[in-house]
Amino acid sequence: MKSRAAVAWGPGKPLSIEEVDVMPPQAGEVRIRVIASGVCHTDAFTLSGDDPEGIFPAILGHEGGGIVESVGEGVTSVAVGDHVIPLYTPECGECKFCTSGKTNLCGRIRDTQGKGLMPDGTTRFSKDGEPIYHYMGCSTFSEYTVLPEISLAKVNKRAPLEEVCLLGCGVTTGMGAVMNTAKVEEGATVAVFGLGGIGLSAVIGAAMARAGRIIAIDLNESKFDLARHLGATDCINPKKYEKPIQEVIVDLTDGGVDYSFECIGNVDVMRSALECCHKGWGESVIIGVAGAGQEISTRPFQLVTGRVWKGTAFGGVKGRSELPDYVERYLAGEFKLNDFITHTMGLDGINHAFDLMHSGESIRSVIHFDQ
Amino acid sequence: MKSRAAVAWGPGKPLSIEEVDVMPPQAGEVRIRVIASGVCHTDAFTLSGDDPEGIFPAILGHEGGGIVESVGEGVTSVAVGDHVIPLYTPECGECKFCTSGKTNLCGRIRDTQGKGLMPDGTTRFSKDGEPIYHYMGCSTFSEYTVLPEISLAKVNKRAPLEEVCLLGCGVTTGMGAVMNTAKVEEGATVAVFGLGGIGLSAVIGAAMARAGRIIAIDLNESKFDLARHLGATDCINPKKYEKPIQEVIVDLTDGGVDYSFECIGNVDVMRSALECCHKGWGESVIIGVAGAGQEISTRPFQLVTGRVWKGTAFGGVKGRSELPDYVERYLAGEFKLNDFITHTMGLDGINHAFDLMHSGESIRSVIHFDQ
Repeated sequence: MKSRAAVAWGPGKPLSIEEVDVMPPQAGEVRIRVIASGVCHTDAFTLSGDDPEGIFPAILGHEGGGIVESVGEGVTSVAVGDHVIPLYTPECGECKFCTSGKTNLCGRIRDTQGKGLMPDGTTRFSKDGEPIYHYMGCSTFSEYTVLPEISLAKVNKRAPLEEVCLLGCGVTTGMGAVMNTAKVEEGATVAVFGLGGIGLSAVIGAAMARAGRIIAIDLNESKFDLARHLGATDCINPKKYEKPIQEVIVDLTDGGVDYSFECIGNVDVMRSALECCHKGWGESVIIGVAGAGQEISTRPFQLVTGRVWKGTAFGGVKGRSELPDYVERYLAGEFKLNDFITHTMGLDGINHAFDLMHSGESIRSVIHFDQ
Repeated sequence: MKSRAAVAWGPGKPLSIEEVDVMPPQAGEVRIRVIASGVCHTDAFTLSGDDPEGIFPAILGHEGGGIVESVGEGVTSVAVGDHVIPLYTPECGECKFCTSGKTNLCGRIRDTQGKGLMPDGTTRFSKDGEPIYHYMGCSTFSEYTVLPEISLAKVNKRAPLEEVCLLGCGVTTGMGAVMNTAKVEEGATVAVFGLGGIGLSAVIGAAMARAGRIIAIDLNESKFDLARHLGATDCINPKKYEKPIQEVIVDLTDGGVDYSFECIGNVDVMRSALECCHKGWGESVIIGVAGAGQEISTRPFQLVTGRVWKGTAFGGVKGRSELPDYVERYLAGEFKLNDFITHTMGLDGINHAFDLMHSGESIRSVIHFDQ
């Protein structure tokens, strides 16, 4: 079938709105109609050409919400008309990772997904007969896209896809890092570095976990009002201090925080986030994705004296078995999503969405395919 | 009273056997007769002058076993004649750390202990009226020494102090790292880097935890027989491979180990230990103490994909509430200590003990004060 899509023909170029061909789903696959898709920094990272694993031409987008249009042979877990959120971290339920009980990473289709291919090694997108690659197994910047069945979370139809699409990446990543990966307890002291979509979601997660103190850190003070609205108790701009920010936070908290979250992808901030943790038990979780080849460092004494350094992908949340529950909690009013959505636009506006992100004007722009 | 002691007059010099004055215990303090003391790498590190926090003149030694000789005012938890193991990590039971339930570090006397002083800011040792400093709050290279009550673990009198003195540092550190800090489960795959006293103790701990596979790594193959005897299933010499050792271990274990332990203090090995862990859940524990100013590094992707980097001091074991149970497990035959004790000697032989350590000939030399 024909589908309108934003195609990334090469690194550093604007996306081009095209009519592409989308094949029917093959065995174990599902074709969905995308209703809405957030525009995330990871899309911009790949589009910029800085992502060493970026493949072109491709259809980007990985934070979507859609409706099942057709299913391939053997598909049983979703049916035509179901509402779904595409998962860049699939859940096969059978591999060593899925059965470990210790991680949400799934190994089943990692190799082909990383190459922009479906599990059978081919693509479902093409233009004039030439293949176009998939992206993060999702490619939600297309009106229609094809995914493996194991890469779809079936969610409650009552949830507006224009909002819960954000649970396909940023919001779940931030909230999950707090609730799944760190398991922040009631009364704990928390520091969140970076108040983009993921950092603000971590603030929400900390508030949901009833953290006693939530310290939000950003160089851009215009983000502080929203952070406070979402639950931050202290907002700090490191530029205002002469001391390293980790020392400022240690002083402010009588020894350091119980949990910290790096939501930027800056390796120096990752170090600060670790070192502002309390001796004996403080845990720091890396959420941000650093540039290729960059490294984190610290003195080992930081760990020997009881701090823990860990990381998380998609907030440690298992897409098919746990994400639907996040949607239910959203429907129950435990958290809001419209605070994050600063702009909406049709697919034609997608390059503007990237501009708004780069300028810092947007938290999230959401593409509505029916606009 | 007078006491024979090995005094470190300054960095880099041999220890000097002297008759020193030891004051009676003050309020909250205990004087003990030291029966035996292991000689540990940390003693050698401080004696070398490389320890930036080393203070001289001092009486070194921190791995001892002794008998209470007299108690100061208000001491209630031990009495004259009790058998005790000195603790460089005290346990006051009341501070923020002790009551956290999350760490064995105690903050009560940290400041004075770090300065070679008793909690009241003075020393109990002197020679010709000039003060001699304490070391790690223990100073077990003296026939008599004084410690705060909170720095003593009271242990079963049936246990030979000439052996269980090793539980005052190295053996507990290695076993505790496995059982307390990492909580290795039955069937897990474990890698132990460095087969000195701590590494071999980690091997024992892994065997006690019924790990399914215990991979021991050292450049010195002469240690492999003992490692195997203690439970290692694979012994690897990194020099025998062209690939980095972390890649060798990942290949050998179908993706990496569940837990790894760095027992050397080498920051490059710390990186290898982290990176040989399995994606999704592998945890690496730093036990070794690196040189001043040295840093660990890795790509943050290692953590974002689920590995955890942590450390441990004294194996995460609380000295007064948990160490006596290690002695009971020793008495019950769950592990042996004489495998570690390669040499014994009187106090006069202490400089020889350091030589044996530096040459790699000894695992542990134990000073017997009655020899």
